[in-house]
Order: sequence, then structure tokens, then C-alpha cells
Amino acid sequence: MTKIAVDCMGGDYAPEEIVKGCILAYKDLGLESILVGDEEKIRQVLEREKFDGLQVVHAEDVVQMHEAPSNVLRKKNSSLYVAGMLVREGKADGLVSAGNTGAVLTVGKFVIGSIPDLERPAIAVALPNPKGKTVLIDVGANVDCKPSHLLHFAVIGHTHAEEILGIKNPRVGILSIGEEEGKGNELVKETYPLLKASKLNFLGNAEGRDIYAGTFDVIVCDGFVGNVVLKASESLGFAVLQMIKEEVQKSFLAKIGALLMKPTLNNFKKKADFAEYGGIPLLGAKKPVIITHGRANAKAIKNAIRVANEFLTHHFNERLSENLKKLLPQEVKV
Amino acid sequence: MTKIAVDCMGGDYAPEEIVKGCILAYKDLGLESILVGDEEKIRQVLEREKFDGLQVVHAEDVVQMHEAPSNVLRKKNSSLYVAGMLVREGKADGLVSAGNTGAVLTVGKFVIGSIPDLERPAIAVALPNPKGKTVLIDVGANVDCKPSHLLHFAVIGHTHAEEILGIKNPRVGILSIGEEEGKGNELVKETYPLLKASKLNFLGNAEGRDIYAGTFDVIVCDGFVGNVVLKASESLGFAVLQMIKEEVQKSFLAKIGALLMKPTLNNFKKKADFAEYGGIPLLGAKKPVIITHGRANAKAIKNAIRVANEFLTHHFNERLSENLKKLLPQEVKV
Repeated sequence: MTKIAVDCMGGDYAPEEIVKGCILAYKDLGLESILVGDEEKIRQVLEREKFDGLQVVHAEDVVQMHEAPSNVLRKKNSSLYVAGMLVREGKADGLVSAGNTGAVLTVGKFVIGSIPDLERPAIAVALPNPKGKTVLIDVGANVDCKPSHLLHFAVIGHTHAEEILGIKNPRVGILSIGEEEGKGNELVKETYPLLKASKLNFLGNAEGRDIYAGTFDVIVCDGFVGNVVLKASESLGFAVLQMIKEEVQKSFLAKIGALLMKPTLNNFKKKADFAEYGGIPLLGAKKPVIITHGRANAKAIKNAIRVANEFLTHHFNERLSENLKKLLPQEVKV
Repeated sequence: MTKIAVDCMGGDYAPEEIVKGCILAYKDLGLESILVGDEEKIRQVLEREKFDGLQVVHAEDVVQMHEAPSNVLRKKNSSLYVAGMLVREGKADGLVSAGNTGAVLTVGKFVIGSIPDLERPAIAVALPNPKGKTVLIDVGANVDCKPSHLLHFAVIGHTHAEEILGIKNPRVGILSIGEEEGKGNELVKETYPLLKASKLNFLGNAEGRDIYAGTFDVIVCDGFVGNVVLKASESLGFAVLQMIKEEVQKSFLAKIGALLMKPTLNNFKKKADFAEYGGIPLLGAKKPVIITHGRANAKAIKNAIRVANEFLTHHFNERLSENLKKLLPQEVKV
């Protein structure tokens, strides 16, 4: 039986919603977790919920949301660090946290560590498009990148698309401006020949417009660009809904129309709801590390535990290791 | 009377729609343009439209859409180069082209040139948000940037927000990941203190989510990041509409609802329609250079001519020169 270590003190609704999420994961999906954090507070929630089937590991301290991420390495009694150590020592099989994102990344990179042969782990998101999904990688784990990092992200993204999304021979692109080879910034121009020399199904430059068009299955970029694009997308979605709402208020017929469309729009919103997909994974760490939204509720935590488990049952890391051996061009193999 | 040189051979619907756009600008707005390109073809359109009030300047050659941008500097008989030279020589007061974007930028930078004291011209877009507009600069003119370039973009963006959008003391941010000072990539970290030392109303780091939230009036970034964000936004908008349409098809009530909402959605789409805002300006060139979409129709061209004229009547370049003297920190003044 696999067990996911869950940082019960991270996130806006900790520990209440986090603990409830762990209970849901157990009841609905049969997935076990280890509850890490202030034991008294955790037990209070468990009692209120009349549930007593999960292991609790006490941790005195908490990494705050706005603390410098590196602080976590000094806060060895924090729920996040203790949860990371459980994974490192083989007592847990994965980590879920809704806490300080930078600190979770730090624990993933330095406490749990990355698999052999991989230069840097990276965060992937599977973004929706009318035809399916496109993996964008990295969206924030690595701010300043070298060409070899992007090459490794491409292999991680390929493995994600193939193993998790079930896409055979995924089409890989590098995010740039302009389609033609030779267009882009220095990083793109230097990475291009490496990707071309690899055994990936590399189609060349992808443009911003390709991210939501379904023309690529995997698009690689540095974590700065990826993070900006991801957050801009979220905010654009919100702004568009807001502006449409304002237009709707101006017309009686439109108000009726909006009412009739509500169930449909809710279906659509569900597709884009972070609580549904649970969280985003730091890929390439030795065990699954799932970072959920700070506003994660019980449902989001349940789904994050499900996602962590999915990476284990798909033997993601084994496939990734094989792919790093198989797909990288000879001259840049580490 | 000002005259805008219009490249009549650039764009998917050239010369037909381009020439018609120039006629519209004259008839609807009283704005004069010089039609540059294959004289015979231009005259054919003018005859069909029974119009004979605009100057035509013949140019033998055409810069193709997928040519290397720098080619334009060797194609001295191309419509784009000839139009650029008319501006350089003071025979025209601005340039409009729907042609090869890179080539238009090349003409703007190297044939027309930038105003004194400015390191690099940049492309700005005013993106909509529920409260108003936010200027994102640069969105593609400068791929690899130095800190001093971003500092200058900030002054250009400030001037754009103040003079064109009418925003007093615009709130300026630098696009980054994370709000706190010290977060971001190398470029952001080096630019931050320069912006802080300037006399701009600098609020610090802006995140991707701020772009459509109305929390800043001007957000600066390098042209690579800006271009990717802009194109991703366009494609996200399209994908969302597409996915909502598919959901709507599944429900009868939703279909009725969508029908009732149609006029409202069309109002909204109008706000986002590139033909309405005409084109995006290369700011900091000695005269207005407006780059329109390759798919520009007559209406888009008319509006691009209107926008070029607007920069002239607002004395944009004079204000920009003053601001460069006034707002830059002493130590980095050129």
C-alpha cells in the first residue's frame, strides 16, 4: 500500500480542509496518506470528522506563505520539511502540499532530490485545447535555464504526454517567437540543435498561439516564461468572464440567455477548475511531488493525492529514466 | 496636412483591402495617405472604387511574408522600403504596413530610426481588463534585452499610458514571477534597481496574473516574453470560445441561451477585434510606425492610419523625449 505524505499546515485552509481531503482520498479512492503537522490540531479535525484510520506525524513548525523558500531547509521541524524527510527516508511514497510553492519546490529539489541522469526537475501543466491537451514545461521551477535544461524538460514532457495523457510519439516544440528555425532568443537558438539531434518527435519552434491550439503535445520553455504565460492565462480567463458579465447586465435578453447557458458554462468551468485536477507535479523528483493551489479545498487535496498515486502506478520515473537514456542525443548525455 | 505612407503590397489582402482602407481613412476621417506599391495594381483598385484623391508612389518589388526581415534592407525597390524612405526623407509623416512584421520593424529601426536619447524602440499593446487598459511593452521588437532597454521601455510605456490612454501618473511594473523584490530572472533582478531609481511611479514586480487584472497601467518585459504572452492570450481566447461552443451544442437550452446572448457577445468580441484598434505601434521611432495584422482588411487599415495620426496630434515623440530627460535615473542617462 502506497502512502502519500501530506503537509497539513500549508495553504489558506489548513489544517481543516487538508485533513478532510486526506479523509476523502481514503474513503472515496482507498488511498492512504500520512498527515504531517501540529498533531493536536490535526486530531481535532479527525475527531470532528469521526475518522481514525490515518497515521499522524507531528511537526512543531510551519513554513509561512510569504517566507523565503530557502528558509524551509533551516526549519527542520516544519510540517513541509518533515513530510519531505518521510519521502526521502522511504517512509512515504510521495508529497502533497498546498503551502509556499517555492518552499515545496525547494524540498522537492533538495530534500527528495531528482532521479539520476536528470539535470533539473521541472513543473508541467497539461493545458486544455479544443482537440485535447498540451503539456507546457517548465512553468516555474527553473527561472534561468541553460539549453541542456530545456532539452531535459522536453524528455520529461514527452514522458508525461506518453504515460499520463496516453499520447503516442508526442509532438514536441520549443516556445519561441516565429515559426522558422533561427527565430527566438539566445536560449532558444542554442537549444534548437540539441532537440533536433535528439530522438524526440521534435517539430521545431512553437509560438504563443500554439499553446492552446492543439498543434503540439509538448511545448518546452524556461520556467520564467512558462510561469508568466500560465498566470496570464488564468487572469485572462477571469477578466473575460468579468467583462462578459458586465456586457450581459446591459441587456435583458442576454440575462435570460446567460441563465439558460449556466449549466453549460459550469461544465466548462469544471474543466478549468484547479480543484478538479488537484495540483501540478514537480516532475523528475525521486518521488511524486504535487503542488496544489494555496486555496486548495478538501476536493483539491483528494485529487492531488490521486495524482501523486497516478504517477506511481504509471511507473512514471522508471519510464523517464529509460527515456533519458533512449532519447537524448549522444553528445549531451550526462 | 499630414500624410501617412501606406505599404499597399503587404498583407494577405493586398493591394485591394489596403487601398480601400486608405480611401476609407480619407472619406471617413479626412486623413491623407500616400499609396506605395505596384502603381498599375493600385490604380486598378482606385478606378474600381472610382476614387482619385490620393498620391501613388510606384515601387517595383515586394517583401514576401516569410522572407528574412533583414532582406528588406537589400530590396530597396520594395513597397515597404520605399514607404520607409518617404518617411525618412520627410515626405510622409508615418508608416502603416500589414506586411512581414519583422521587415516592418527593420524599416522602423534602421530606415526611419529612433529618436535621440532612446536606446531601442519597442512595440506596445494596450490590453483590456475589467477596469480599463494595461500597456504591455515590449511585445516583440527586441528579443534579447539588457536592463537599460527595459528601463527605456518603461518610459515609453509611461508616455503611452499618459498621452494616449489619458492615465495620470501611470503605475509601472516589471513582469516577473513572484511579487517580492529579488524574485525573477537575472534580467528582472538587474532592471529592478534602475526602475526604482527612476522618477517613474514604479510599484515593483508584476506577475502574469496582473496583466489582465488592472493592477498596473504599464508592464515592461523583454520582447520574447511579451510576444509569447500576447500570442498565447489570443489563442486562449479563441480556444475558450471554441470549447464553450462545443459544450453549448450538447444542450438545447444552452443553444437558446447562446442565441439570446449573441448581440452581447458580439459587443464583447468587437472590443477584442484587431480591426477595431487598427494595429500596434513601434514606439520610439522618429515617426509613427503602425504594424497591422497580416489579415488586415480595409477597416483595420483605416484605423491604423487613424492611430498613426493620433500619435502625431498627441505630439507623442516630443513628450517621450521630455520624459526620457525627466524620468530616467541620472546614472543611466544616455
